[in-house]
Amino acid sequence: MKVGFIGLGNMGSGMAGNLLAAGHEVTVYNRTPERAQALIAKGAKAGASIAEACHGDAVLTMLADDEAVTRVALDAGGIRDSLAAGAIHVGCSTISVALSQRLTQAHAEGGQRYVAAPVFGRPEAAAAARLAVVAAGASDAVTEVRPLLEAIGQKLLVPSQTPADANLIKLSGNFLIATVIEALGEAMALVGKAGIDRQQYLRILTSTLFDAPVFHTYGGLVAEQRFEPAGFAAPLGLKDVRLVLAAGEASRVPLPIASLLRDRFLALLAQGGENLDWSAIGMLAARDAAAS
Amino acid sequence: MKVGFIGLGNMGSGMAGNLLAAGHEVTVYNRTPERAQALIAKGAKAGASIAEACHGDAVLTMLADDEAVTRVALDAGGIRDSLAAGAIHVGCSTISVALSQRLTQAHAEGGQRYVAAPVFGRPEAAAAARLAVVAAGASDAVTEVRPLLEAIGQKLLVPSQTPADANLIKLSGNFLIATVIEALGEAMALVGKAGIDRQQYLRILTSTLFDAPVFHTYGGLVAEQRFEPAGFAAPLGLKDVRLVLAAGEASRVPLPIASLLRDRFLALLAQGGENLDWSAIGMLAARDAAAS
Amino acid sequence: MKVGFIGLGNMGSGMAGNLLAAGHEVTVYNRTPERAQALIAKGAKAGASIAEACHGDAVLTMLADDEAVTRVALDAGGIRDSLAAGAIHVGCSTISVALSQRLTQAHAEGGQRYVAAPVFGRPEAAAAARLAVVAAGASDAVTEVRPLLEAIGQKLLVPSQTPADANLIKLSGNFLIATVIEALGEAMALVGKAGIDRQQYLRILTSTLFDAPVFHTYGGLVAEQRFEPAGFAAPLGLKDVRLVLAAGEASRVPLPIASLLRDRFLALLAQGGENLDWSAIGMLAARDAAAS
Amino acid sequence: MKVGFIGLGNMGSGMAGNLLAAGHEVTVYNRTPERAQALIAKGAKAGASIAEACHGDAVLTMLADDEAVTRVALDAGGIRDSLAAGAIHVGCSTISVALSQRLTQAHAEGGQRYVAAPVFGRPEAAAAARLAVVAAGASDAVTEVRPLLEAIGQKLLVPSQTPADANLIKLSGNFLIATVIEALGEAMALVGKAGIDRQQYLRILTSTLFDAPVFHTYGGLVAEQRFEPAGFAAPLGLKDVRLVLAAGEASRVPLPIASLLRDRFLALLAQGGENLDWSAIGMLAARDAAAS
Repeated sequence: MKVGFIGLGNMGSGMAGNLLAAGHEVTVYNRTPERAQALIAKGAKAGASIAEACHGDAVLTMLADDEAVTRVALDAGGIRDSLAAGAIHVGCSTISVALSQRLTQAHAEGGQRYVAAPVFGRPEAAAAARLAVVAAGASDAVTEVRPLLEAIGQKLLVPSQTPADANLIKLSGNFLIATVIEALGEAMALVGKAGIDRQQYLRILTSTLFDAPVFHTYGGLVAEQRFEPAGFAAPLGLKDVRLVLAAGEASRVPLPIASLLRDRFLALLAQGGENLDWSAIGMLAARDAAAS
Repeated sequence: MKVGFIGLGNMGSGMAGNLLAAGHEVTVYNRTPERAQALIAKGAKAGASIAEACHGDAVLTMLADDEAVTRVALDAGGIRDSLAAGAIHVGCSTISVALSQRLTQAHAEGGQRYVAAPVFGRPEAAAAARLAVVAAGASDAVTEVRPLLEAIGQKLLVPSQTPADANLIKLSGNFLIATVIEALGEAMALVGKAGIDRQQYLRILTSTLFDAPVFHTYGGLVAEQRFEPAGFAAPLGLKDVRLVLAAGEASRVPLPIASLLRDRFLALLAQGGENLDWSAIGMLAARDAAAS
Repeated sequence: MKVGFIGLGNMGSGMAGNLLAAGHEVTVYNRTPERAQALIAKGAKAGASIAEACHGDAVLTMLADDEAVTRVALDAGGIRDSLAAGAIHVGCSTISVALSQRLTQAHAEGGQRYVAAPVFGRPEAAAAARLAVVAAGASDAVTEVRPLLEAIGQKLLVPSQTPADANLIKLSGNFLIATVIEALGEAMALVGKAGIDRQQYLRILTSTLFDAPVFHTYGGLVAEQRFEPAGFAAPLGLKDVRLVLAAGEASRVPLPIASLLRDRFLALLAQGGENLDWSAIGMLAARDAAAS
Repeated sequence: MKVGFIGLGNMGSGMAGNLLAAGHEVTVYNRTPERAQALIAKGAKAGASIAEACHGDAVLTMLADDEAVTRVALDAGGIRDSLAAGAIHVGCSTISVALSQRLTQAHAEGGQRYVAAPVFGRPEAAAAARLAVVAAGASDAVTEVRPLLEAIGQKLLVPSQTPADANLIKLSGNFLIATVIEALGEAMALVGKAGIDRQQYLRILTSTLFDAPVFHTYGGLVAEQRFEPAGFAAPLGLKDVRLVLAAGEASRVPLPIASLLRDRFLALLAQGGENLDWSAIGMLAARDAAAS
């Protein structure tokens, strides 16, 4: 397919690379164009503007937050203004439920289609095409972009035809990951202060009913207190918890663990954690306990 | 080996059965003797008293709480008074760190040995010998009882030579399970109120980085809101959270999620949940949100 | 002085009435003009538009939330467009720190002055001129509007020359009130379930170190579970907690009690409390405990 | 009256002194007898044992915790063994509801009477006879000891004839104080990080609906961050929160703010606060926020 790709950060670069590798014709655009060089060397076309990335059948976006997506998609000269009738905007960014609803409507008014396709996985998984993609949108649109989504992920999950559902599921998934980080942080503060080796403790856990990637990956980071470099930075963790809480507030759902996580991220950022991985909230319980 | 087994509840019956099946000579004792009938039919000897269950190389206990273990092990006529010098008490119950330390000392003073060997797994896993056993104690003692532990579980994990470490790990594991239940309860309240099917949501989660038994098992219970019959009853869940908090208090470790879980269990019990499975705390978020 | 007054709700009506009573010339404006009738009968002039309420030395606003204040003050044809150079906008509404900063700047650019003057007190206090007013702004501006502020309140407190400081103090004060409500709710659930009379309990508390209006007023409402009619409605309570949390997030200050209060308000609203007084969060602890 | 007084710490010394000043005949006993010297100089008789302090019409106890009260009252040679039939044990210590119930029963079985009379007030108030006393017990017993209670306090509040009610009210009162400390700590972290002077902030609060001793006293300590010397030490604060939580657990009442307070006290103690006043939990919000 002929597609555009906007947003070449840690995640987007790998995803765009896998679209190229799968044989698609990809025009890339990034606000700081230097990040496009490696992809152009692999055969991507350079887009000089958002509009130039919107000349194909679909355009994928992988951006940091609601603000960036709003600017790229909805501001003058953005995707809504540039995409051909019938073409599809595939939004992979982790954004709010409210913005996803707004994009759905804006593209419908523009005669275009919107598919929300947020992804689970860290930069290594993006580079290796091992992401899990949760995609929601009109059936025909999802069917058309399926080859793209299969090129960037190893799993494609389609919950419904409502794009915002995919975003809510993605946000709730990040909430669950952050909960596991916090819980492991508390548990390791407790067993660590008793003198039990944290790595061995994690091996025991993952030998039992906790044998899942979320425990292996984040448990390892917390056990080793290895929070740099950031695969997913702490401010993004705060952002996602904020979006989960906002979704909960809109539908009147109290989320006490999410509230606790929000406070943890604020403490982490207040104490100098801007550049740490979001899993660094997993050291705060030990810090509170004055455990090593 | 020639062993005794005390405590024939949902878990203990299966465990004692597997010791018999592995060829051990087992004398069983239970406060209400009726529960021993099925095992006697399979070849177990009936013990008329605690002392009669203490005539072998080792005695295993699988009881409900600290109070029951204290009565059976430390009261007059109990295990400490009955076990031969050099014999081993294998404590499988989920008890406090403090009681485990007390048992270690009491048995040492009695010339006996104590191995803490709490288990992960619900009654089905106990019956099928698929438990994970976390065993800690003096190396020689653990080596001697290894055949017993391998008969009741499919995994044997040995963190240290300090019995109480095994109990702390077991308690922290139950804390992690309860956290997953609560977090899934919150997430399902959120996506459920948005109209997303909870079962499908769980399938998506377990297709990604949440592919572990803890999510499958407890996610299924929460998604279906199937809390009866209780595999592990709510009051036992409260007990374990209380013991985790007590361990944290003793070593000055704040555990905010554990505090939240304690409040959840109290609400569940206040609202009539005495006979429900502990996973029923996973419906409280939906109840707060007036979600179905 | 010749002033305008915009926003004639439960609070504003009383405040405008007291400005009249103190001899000021008051032009009133309300989106639904019927609410102005009683004041016009007492001598107020009817403003047909926002602009007509902006012809004097100052204009006071007492509106429900950020959205209403933004519309009235900053939209085309609003206060910023209508107020004479040098005139003063006195903002009495409980709004966000961010909007207060924006108003300060917008009026400065318009050659006008902005004084933030949020008030403590319920409708009865507004009607009786017994409010406490926290006013912040440039000294000359605060001095000029002092007669107005003294007409509506019995106490005038001036923390600084930065308008947003007054809003932050007001929001933090509402946070403290809500905390007292929640804490009394928990305490009364505890003593009430033990059979102690809640009214007598409150009398004991207020005989000791809890002898302050916040305990008398809100303790009485919680003890009697009298939450209608709403002096300050639950959705406004949620709004204020949200604004406190937003201020905390902007400056990286975790506020765990505020997080808990947010969840309480969401539960209250989810369970049908839209029209109850915000003190109704004080019954949720008893509800959780299945106490009467 | 002829009375004994056991427990001459910061609080008890002042209380016993006021009994002497009111003309009562007081035999004092303390485990470390040096603390009795000043009172003996004022006319108290020295008791060489608990029994010697039990020869009068009543004996008052003012001890640190359940353990101390149990030892003094219920162990062999203690108050229960020593007090004459019909005499009254007046328990002023802040103890658990469960122990109060046990004392009530033990004294009844001994033909004695028990009045629970916990007090509100710090050491300065104890010395100045300005305590508030909450007394519960059989009417005749409360009537008989009324002169004693009026000698040590300026207010006497009688909630019921059930001694444990007084203890529950006292514990709930300490819970409310600790809540105010925490809430002020959060509020001051927020306004302090915005540059508002904490002392001025407190003056504004106490000028409005927060004009109560609890805000003046504890607000002052938090605003000044003056936590030494301890009027009421942090470990005692933890103890009281633990007792509140235990009372809540016994009657199935979730107490989320109490849970938060427990975590705060544990963090304070883990971080070296053993000798600080309990109000030092009010600095933890600022510490989390990296505010000064």
